[in-house]
Amino acid sequence: MTNLEELGQKAQNAAFELGQLGTKAKNAALMAMADSLVLNTKQIIEANKEDYDNAEKNGVKKAMLDRLLLTPDRINDMATGLRQVMDLPDPIGKIDRGWQTETGLDITQERVPLGVIGMIYEARPNVTVDAAGLCFKAGNAVILRGGKEAINSNIALSETLRQALKKVGITEDAVQLIDDVSHETAQKMMELSEYIDVLIPRGSGKFIKMVVDKAKVPIIETGAGNCHIYVDKDANLDKALQIIINAKVQRPSVCNAAEKVILHKDIANEFLPDLYDALRANSVEVRGDTLSRAIEPDIIPATEEDWDTEYDDYIIAIKIVDSLDQAVKHINKYNTKHSESIITENYTASRKFMKQIDAAVVYTNASTRFTDGQQFGFGAEIGISTQKLHARGPMGANELTTTKYLVQGDGQIRL
Amino acid sequence: MTNLEELGQKAQNAAFELGQLGTKAKNAALMAMADSLVLNTKQIIEANKEDYDNAEKNGVKKAMLDRLLLTPDRINDMATGLRQVMDLPDPIGKIDRGWQTETGLDITQERVPLGVIGMIYEARPNVTVDAAGLCFKAGNAVILRGGKEAINSNIALSETLRQALKKVGITEDAVQLIDDVSHETAQKMMELSEYIDVLIPRGSGKFIKMVVDKAKVPIIETGAGNCHIYVDKDANLDKALQIIINAKVQRPSVCNAAEKVILHKDIANEFLPDLYDALRANSVEVRGDTLSRAIEPDIIPATEEDWDTEYDDYIIAIKIVDSLDQAVKHINKYNTKHSESIITENYTASRKFMKQIDAAVVYTNASTRFTDGQQFGFGAEIGISTQKLHARGPMGANELTTTKYLVQGDGQIRL
Repeated sequence: MTNLEELGQKAQNAAFELGQLGTKAKNAALMAMADSLVLNTKQIIEANKEDYDNAEKNGVKKAMLDRLLLTPDRINDMATGLRQVMDLPDPIGKIDRGWQTETGLDITQERVPLGVIGMIYEARPNVTVDAAGLCFKAGNAVILRGGKEAINSNIALSETLRQALKKVGITEDAVQLIDDVSHETAQKMMELSEYIDVLIPRGSGKFIKMVVDKAKVPIIETGAGNCHIYVDKDANLDKALQIIINAKVQRPSVCNAAEKVILHKDIANEFLPDLYDALRANSVEVRGDTLSRAIEPDIIPATEEDWDTEYDDYIIAIKIVDSLDQAVKHINKYNTKHSESIITENYTASRKFMKQIDAAVVYTNASTRFTDGQQFGFGAEIGISTQKLHARGPMGANELTTTKYLVQGDGQIRL
Repeated sequence: MTNLEELGQKAQNAAFELGQLGTKAKNAALMAMADSLVLNTKQIIEANKEDYDNAEKNGVKKAMLDRLLLTPDRINDMATGLRQVMDLPDPIGKIDRGWQTETGLDITQERVPLGVIGMIYEARPNVTVDAAGLCFKAGNAVILRGGKEAINSNIALSETLRQALKKVGITEDAVQLIDDVSHETAQKMMELSEYIDVLIPRGSGKFIKMVVDKAKVPIIETGAGNCHIYVDKDANLDKALQIIINAKVQRPSVCNAAEKVILHKDIANEFLPDLYDALRANSVEVRGDTLSRAIEPDIIPATEEDWDTEYDDYIIAIKIVDSLDQAVKHINKYNTKHSESIITENYTASRKFMKQIDAAVVYTNASTRFTDGQQFGFGAEIGISTQKLHARGPMGANELTTTKYLVQGDGQIRL
């Protein structure tokens, strides 16, 4: 079994070094990492072929196989991602606020790295590179633990990044991979509070729930998205139709896709038939409550479980409500606090929905698909936080930092 | 056993209501709570007498008895505390940042309440009032679970606050006390993730560690303080002496008191005898390493365990180092990331210490005793966070909030 204490100690030492690095040195390293990925394309693809063949042999599903596959283009995309992270502003050293106290102490609150970040994730090997890059930009050491299906790819990728770091004279322990994919080691990693400051799980809802249950290290929960679109009585129905189809169909497998539509009763009769046809034309299975089935009998009856479910698939469920208040109540009860949107031309309805819905991101007249680090302009993201502590919504490099108070005095004692 | 689900549901409903309240309504409620405390002084003191007599009968230590005791003055202080919280700026509704995206979406990141805060704490009944006031100011519902020694006092205090809320027309469920002091109920509270957004433990280091180990709800860890004062070779030794005595002796039982002194070898011969005499004159037991005992043989030998220990008592341990680097290394290894201070007149030494020490608050030429919400100017504090997620250092009303992204569009879909 991997000696996690040793690994943790190395990460902590590396974090201390990274905390002292300037922006220039960090960016040079990110550039070197990007270049090395491109130069090592052949070796990375060979390692990935091993993973792919094993997965195929083990009867892994086609969609999953595709997520595992690395091609020269995909490796190039990873390198491009690192160069984009390089171009981002450095979040470290920024002064959030500062003031002088009554006793004459000068206090400044400054952004500093979190320290050591643990990433625990499932199959996609690109997380290895994306996470390493973003953690590094914010001056953090990272300990990576990917899924067993991608282990050879992850070793090749992380070794490539480590060699690049070495080449520019930075400790390679800034990026470490746990190459032991046993459950025991994963469990030990989740308890490594002495060395890991924050653990970020990435993967399916089930996977994240498992990590949250088992971890002792502080966690940032990401990803679960049971997102709703509410079509108000004063909605522009053309906008509503376009936004719902986009939010459901443009990429159904991701957490910011819409899973539920809530319709105000006053527009349901007019709108639902068009909506139903458009959804069906896009191969979406449509479920709904009794009221919606009274309008469109081909709708499949929704059960109580449906309102709680994130399908991540070509399925949507529709509910008809009497009022905006009822819509807000339903959404706050069943949502995962990710992204919710109201379609309305009514000022007061928009204002009320935006204030009363409890979620990381609340929209008026836009698709929930915009909840994303790139779309928000953060350049890259490590995940979308659905918890309320520390960070909420898309997390970029800035969310991988903490603060420190620096207090300058000239002999002050407390009376 | 208390029905915690029901209590949690009530708290969640209350949190929704509080989230919609304006500053004026919240301040009127805080004023009413303060007034009610003063008016109910007699009943509160009667309830407290019961707790006090029980504790005395059970042989509780004198220092502990004093922490439990309520007097008219102490109740008045709690009321004053609430009025101070009333006067603080409202952290809710503040826009942290805002921008427009390439697709024409207007994004603002706004401060909103956390929702439901759980407080789990030991004996001191004033936490009941302080926590309720600060949570309420930031628009949060609070679920309180105090120690069994103070149960009668806590019931009297929380009922007083609830009556005051009722009087001003705000749901009394904004403040709820778990009056069942069994361990089973405490354990269930720590697992109530569906209803409690954040759990904040207050009490001894041992108590907090227990909560961190057992809780499933996200936690803000507070309080452990193994604080160091490093006296540099270029220190003003008069300042150093005053600051060390203040940081150790002014209130030794609290987390921001100094527990360790690190001396640079170049000033140790001159400074240690004076320091030793001053500490002994203040009844402080002095422990130290071999080098310090070579200078002052009456110093008690320190063991490895000493460097790790938060005494919270009239004890201090002294270590002599060769260099600033060695001091930084020692402190980063043994500190609890609370508060650390360098005493120096040297610009570069100060800058280096401030940058390299990993702690919530780092000082130059000041006592660690300033790490405190009141001293920082936050008006009140709910605790001092020693973790890196969410909040670090003294936590005031602002730290009891999270953010929400509000996104305004006019039909945007993602391409």
